[in-house]
Amino acid sequence: MFKLLFFFAVLILSSNASVQDFCVADLKGPESPAGYSCKAVTKVTVNDFMFSGLNAAGNTSNIIKAAVSPAFAAQFPSLNGLGLSAARLDLAPGGVIRTVPFHTHPGASEVLLVVQGSITAAFVSSANTVYLKTLKKGELMVFPHGLLHFQVNASYSSVAYVFFSSSNPGLQITDFALFANDLSTKLVEATTFLDEAQIKELKGVLGGTG
Amino acid sequence: MFKLLFFFAVLILSSNASVQDFCVADLKGPESPAGYSCKAVTKVTVNDFMFSGLNAAGNTSNIIKAAVSPAFAAQFPSLNGLGLSAARLDLAPGGVIRTVPFHTHPGASEVLLVVQGSITAAFVSSANTVYLKTLKKGELMVFPHGLLHFQVNASYSSVAYVFFSSSNPGLQITDFALFANDLSTKLVEATTFLDEAQIKELKGVLGGTG
Amino acid sequence: MFKLLFFFAVLILSSNASVQDFCVADLKGPESPAGYSCKAVTKVTVNDFMFSGLNAAGNTSNIIKAAVSPAFAAQFPSLNGLGLSAARLDLAPGGVIRTVPFHTHPGASEVLLVVQGSITAAFVSSANTVYLKTLKKGELMVFPHGLLHFQVNASYSSVAYVFFSSSNPGLQITDFALFANDLSTKLVEATTFLDEAQIKELKGVLGGTG
Amino acid sequence: MFKLLFFFAVLILSSNASVQDFCVADLKGPESPAGYSCKAVTKVTVNDFMFSGLNAAGNTSNIIKAAVSPAFAAQFPSLNGLGLSAARLDLAPGGVIRTVPFHTHPGASEVLLVVQGSITAAFVSSANTVYLKTLKKGELMVFPHGLLHFQVNASYSSVAYVFFSSSNPGLQITDFALFANDLSTKLVEATTFLDEAQIKELKGVLGGTG
Amino acid sequence: MFKLLFFFAVLILSSNASVQDFCVADLKGPESPAGYSCKAVTKVTVNDFMFSGLNAAGNTSNIIKAAVSPAFAAQFPSLNGLGLSAARLDLAPGGVIRTVPFHTHPGASEVLLVVQGSITAAFVSSANTVYLKTLKKGELMVFPHGLLHFQVNASYSSVAYVFFSSSNPGLQITDFALFANDLSTKLVEATTFLDEAQIKELKGVLGGTG
Amino acid sequence: MFKLLFFFAVLILSSNASVQDFCVADLKGPESPAGYSCKAVTKVTVNDFMFSGLNAAGNTSNIIKAAVSPAFAAQFPSLNGLGLSAARLDLAPGGVIRTVPFHTHPGASEVLLVVQGSITAAFVSSANTVYLKTLKKGELMVFPHGLLHFQVNASYSSVAYVFFSSSNPGLQITDFALFANDLSTKLVEATTFLDEAQIKELKGVLGGTG
Repeated sequence: MFKLLFFFAVLILSSNASVQDFCVADLKGPESPAGYSCKAVTKVTVNDFMFSGLNAAGNTSNIIKAAVSPAFAAQFPSLNGLGLSAARLDLAPGGVIRTVPFHTHPGASEVLLVVQGSITAAFVSSANTVYLKTLKKGELMVFPHGLLHFQVNASYSSVAYVFFSSSNPGLQITDFALFANDLSTKLVEATTFLDEAQIKELKGVLGGTG
Repeated sequence: MFKLLFFFAVLILSSNASVQDFCVADLKGPESPAGYSCKAVTKVTVNDFMFSGLNAAGNTSNIIKAAVSPAFAAQFPSLNGLGLSAARLDLAPGGVIRTVPFHTHPGASEVLLVVQGSITAAFVSSANTVYLKTLKKGELMVFPHGLLHFQVNASYSSVAYVFFSSSNPGLQITDFALFANDLSTKLVEATTFLDEAQIKELKGVLGGTG
Repeated sequence: MFKLLFFFAVLILSSNASVQDFCVADLKGPESPAGYSCKAVTKVTVNDFMFSGLNAAGNTSNIIKAAVSPAFAAQFPSLNGLGLSAARLDLAPGGVIRTVPFHTHPGASEVLLVVQGSITAAFVSSANTVYLKTLKKGELMVFPHGLLHFQVNASYSSVAYVFFSSSNPGLQITDFALFANDLSTKLVEATTFLDEAQIKELKGVLGGTG
Repeated sequence: MFKLLFFFAVLILSSNASVQDFCVADLKGPESPAGYSCKAVTKVTVNDFMFSGLNAAGNTSNIIKAAVSPAFAAQFPSLNGLGLSAARLDLAPGGVIRTVPFHTHPGASEVLLVVQGSITAAFVSSANTVYLKTLKKGELMVFPHGLLHFQVNASYSSVAYVFFSSSNPGLQITDFALFANDLSTKLVEATTFLDEAQIKELKGVLGGTG
Repeated sequence: MFKLLFFFAVLILSSNASVQDFCVADLKGPESPAGYSCKAVTKVTVNDFMFSGLNAAGNTSNIIKAAVSPAFAAQFPSLNGLGLSAARLDLAPGGVIRTVPFHTHPGASEVLLVVQGSITAAFVSSANTVYLKTLKKGELMVFPHGLLHFQVNASYSSVAYVFFSSSNPGLQITDFALFANDLSTKLVEATTFLDEAQIKELKGVLGGTG
Repeated sequence: MFKLLFFFAVLILSSNASVQDFCVADLKGPESPAGYSCKAVTKVTVNDFMFSGLNAAGNTSNIIKAAVSPAFAAQFPSLNGLGLSAARLDLAPGGVIRTVPFHTHPGASEVLLVVQGSITAAFVSSANTVYLKTLKKGELMVFPHGLLHFQVNASYSSVAYVFFSSSNPGLQITDFALFANDLSTKLVEATTFLDEAQIKELKGVLGGTG
C-alpha cells in the first residue's frame, strides 16, 4: 500500500493550485466589489483564523458608557469573502442609559447574542412597525438587513456579541449621518423636519458644521 | 428543408418545459426569500411586461408638494426576480421646498435620472461624508445600497425616475421609522439624542404615539 | 454631552477601515469576475457619483438615424459592483424607420423608460413567443435577461432611457455577431440557414470578411 | 461507548429538520425565481439523483441529422437549485453538414466535451470577435454566458455532452426567435436588415407567419 | 404640517405591498432552493425575531459529555433567507475528553465564539494543512465553508456559540456519514482504507448495518 | 446603407470598453474572493477557451489504479468566474477495486457522466442516508454540494467526466484530511473514535506524523 502515498501526492499537488478554500485579506492589495485581495496561501497561518480583539471590554469611558468593537474583515482578515463578521457591544455598569443609538448596516443582516446582563433591542420595518424585545443572557435576536435598529441596556451592565451576514456589513449611525458632517442646517431641516435649534444643538455635540 | 421544422419543433417542445426566462409574480402565491411565486407562463401576456403607472404625476396635493410612485414587483409583477425596479418622483411647482426626506432602501442601490427641472440630491457614507450634487435634466446620480439619501427640488418643479438593483428594494423613511409608530418617547430620546419636545412634536405630526 | 463626540470618533475611526460602501471603478487596476478594482476612497468625490453623458442626444447622423449611448461601469465608474447601469437611446426625427436592431445583453435584464415620443419594442422568449408593445412617453417595459429584443420608433422622433441589472450588462447585436467579423460565409450559412447572397451582402455592409 | 449512539441520535434528529442538502424539483408545485419547489425529502430516492435519458442518441432523423437532448431541471429534477445541468448533442453519420445552429443560453455558461468524432464550435463576443476551434474527442470548450455560439460536425459523426452553470440555462435558437413566430416581416426586416424575400423564405421553413 | 401625515400615509400604503424586509419561515409551506416560504407579515410578531433555545446548556448526559443545539431556520424561522444561523456547543464538566467530532457544514462558513472555558479547535484545508488553535473565553475562530473541522474541550468545561453564513448550513458528522447507515462494510473499506474490524466496531457503536 | 457601418463602429467602440464577457484567469495577478484576476482581453485567444488536458487517461500506475485529472480554473483559466469546472476520472483495467475514496467538494455540486465501463457511486446526506447507484455508460449522477461521496469501478475499467458548479470546487479527500498531516494521533482518536492502531497505520501509509 505504500504507493498510495505517491498516487495521492500527485493528485494533491495538481489540485492544490486550483483550490481557494479561503481568501485571507491582504489589506494592502487592490480591492474589488467582492472584497479584499487574498494573501498568498503560503503566508497564511492559523493565527489568521483566530481573533482576540473581542475578548475584553471596549473602552466605555465616555458619556454613554458604551463601546462597539468590530471584527469585520478589516480587523479580522480571514473573514474576507466568507459572508460573516462580528462585533462586541459593551454597555458599562452604572445608572444612566447606555445605548447603541439608532443605526443600520447597509450590507448585512445581524444576529445578537446577549452574554451578560440584559438588553432591550428593537428594529423598525419598512412599514414602520417596531419589533421591540428585552433579551436575557443567552438569548438571540435577529435584525434583518438594512433596517434601523438600536440596543439599550436593561440591567446594571451588559455585554453582547453580534454577527453579520457579510464580512463588510458597514455601519451607519443615523445621528452621525445627519449631524456629524457639513450638510447645511437648512437641508437637514428640509429633509428631516427637525427644528433648526435641535439640528444646531446636535451638530454642536457631534462636531458637524453648516 | 421542410423537415427542419419538424426537427426543431421536437427540440423546442422538449426544452420548453425547462425554461424559466422570467417569473412574473403571482401576488397571491407563496413568497420565498427569492421573491414571489411565478404566474403560469400560459397566462403571461405582453401586458405583464409593460407598466403605465408612472406616466403621470403622482398626487402632490400635500404639504410638501411631492409624491413618490413605486413600480416595484408588487406593482409591476414582471420585475419579480429580475433584480430591477423603478419609481417616479414628482416635486410639484411652487415656491416652497419640496423634498423626498432622508430615507434608505435596505435592499438595493439606486440610480436617479432627472427628466424635468433640477434636483439637489445627496447620500451620506458610513464615514459620514456627504456626497451632494445639484442635477440638471438628463443627468444621473448613484446612491449606493442601504445608505441614507434625500432629494429636494432645485427649480420651480421637477420630475425624476429612479431605478433600483432589486425588484423589492424596500423604502425606510427615517422620520417615519423614528416617529410614526408607538416606540416610546423615552427610547427614541435615548437612541437619537433628540430632545423630548422635538420627538413629541414629530410624533404628533406623523401620527406616532408613546 | 461633549464626550459623546469623542466616543463616536473612536468608533467611527475603527469601523471606517472596514467599510466598503461602494467600489468606484479604477479602470486601470486589475479586473476580477466581480468587476473592476476600487479607487481609493480618499480620492472619491461626489463627481464620481453623477454622470452627464446622457443629457444630450447621441449622434444620429447615420443611416438609421439612431444612437445608443451607454452609462455602464466603464463610462460611469461608480456603478461598479452595484448591479445597475443605464443607457440612452435616440431615434432621430424623420420619416424612415429608426431602430435599435435585434440584440441581447448577455448579463442583465433591462427596463426601458420612454421619455419622448413613442417606441415599439419586443422581446422573444425561449419558446419563440413575441412580446410586442408600443409604448408612450412615461411607460416602462421589461426585457428579461439574455433574451433577444429590439426597439423601433413609433413616432416622429423618440428618446428612451434603459436601465440594467448589472454594471456590465454587455451588448451583443445579432447582425454584428453574425456578419461583422471573419466567420466564413459557409459556416454562417450552415448555422443560420440564410442564403449565401444575403450573408455576403450583410458582410459587405457591416465590414465582415470570409 | 454505547451511549454515543444515543447522544448523536438526538443531535441528528434535532438538526435533520433544518437541513436542505438538496431540493429535488416538485414540477407541480409553485415556482419561484430560485427555481422549482422541493419534493418532500421522505419521497426522494437515489433514482432522483441519476438520469438515463442521455445514454442513447437523440433522434437525428431530420434534415440536419442532429439532435439536442436536454437534462435540465425539468427533465432531471434533482438538479434544481444546484447551478448545474447538462445536454447531449448528436451529429449523425453522413456527408452533409450537421449543426446546432447559432443560439444562446440566456442564463448560463457552458462547457462542451466531445466524446465521439470531432466538432467545430465557436462563440462570438460582444466585440464581435469569433472564437472558433475544431475539437477532438476528449477536448473541452467553454462558451461564456449569454453569448451566441454554434457547433457543427467536423467528422463523419460526432457526439458531445454539454454542461451548464444553471439548472435552467434556457435555449434561444436565433433562427427560431427571428422566424418561427408571428413577428411581422416588416419588423424583422427593420431589426435584422435582412431582405424581405429571405425572411419570408425562412418564415416558411420554420413555420412563422406575418 | 398636519397634511404631511396624509401624504406619507399614502406613500407608505402604496409601498408596503412591495416590501419584503424579511421572510419568516412558514415551515409548513412549500420550500424552494432559496429556503422556506414566508409567513404572512400580518402574523409576524417580535417573538419571531428572538430565540431562547440556546440560553441553557444542551443535554450532555451522554458518553462524550457534549451537546450541540442548533438555531437554524428550522428552529429559528426568522433567519430564513437572511444568510445567518447559530448553534450552541456545550462541553460538560469533567475529566475525560468532550468533543464535537470531525464534521463539515456543506453550505456555510462558521465563526466560533468561546463564552466559557477553553476550546481546542482545528480545520483542515484542501491541501490537508491543519489549522489548530486553543481558544480562550472571548476569542473567535473562523472555519471556512465546507472544510472538515472539530472542537474539543481544553479546560474543565466549556461553552461556545457558533454562527454560520447560511440559514441552513447543514451538518455532516464524518463518523455518522461513514458508519451510521447501511453502506456495506466492503464499500466503506474500499473508500476509506480502514480495516474491516474497525469499520464493524464503529458501525456497532453508531447503529450502522451492512 | 454603407453608413450603417460607421454608426455601429462608433457604438461598438464605445461599448467595448465596458464589456466583461469573460474573465480568463491571469494566474499571476491578485486573487479575490470572486476568483482570479482577468487576463487582458487583447491577449485572449480561442486557445484559452479550449482544453486538451482531459483527452487522455490520467496516470493510474499506482496502488489503486485510479487517477483524477482536474480542469479547474487553475488548469483551464477561461473557467474563472463562470461557475463551472470539470475533471476526468480513470479507473484502470484490472481485477482489484479501483476507487476515488470518500471526499467532498467544499464549494460545489457535481454531475458525473460515465463515458466508459460502469461505476458505482454514492453520496451521504446530512441525515446520513446513503444514495447509492451503479451507473452505466451515458448515465448521469448528481452529488449535491459539500456532501461526502465516492466512486468505485463496477466493471473491468471505467472512465467518467465530472462537472462542478464552481470554477474552484475544491477537493477534500477525507483520509488525507485525517491522516496525511501532523494532527496528533490523540486528537484524531478523540474526534473520529477510530482506534489508535488504525490511525497510526493510515498515518504511515499516507505520510502523516504525530
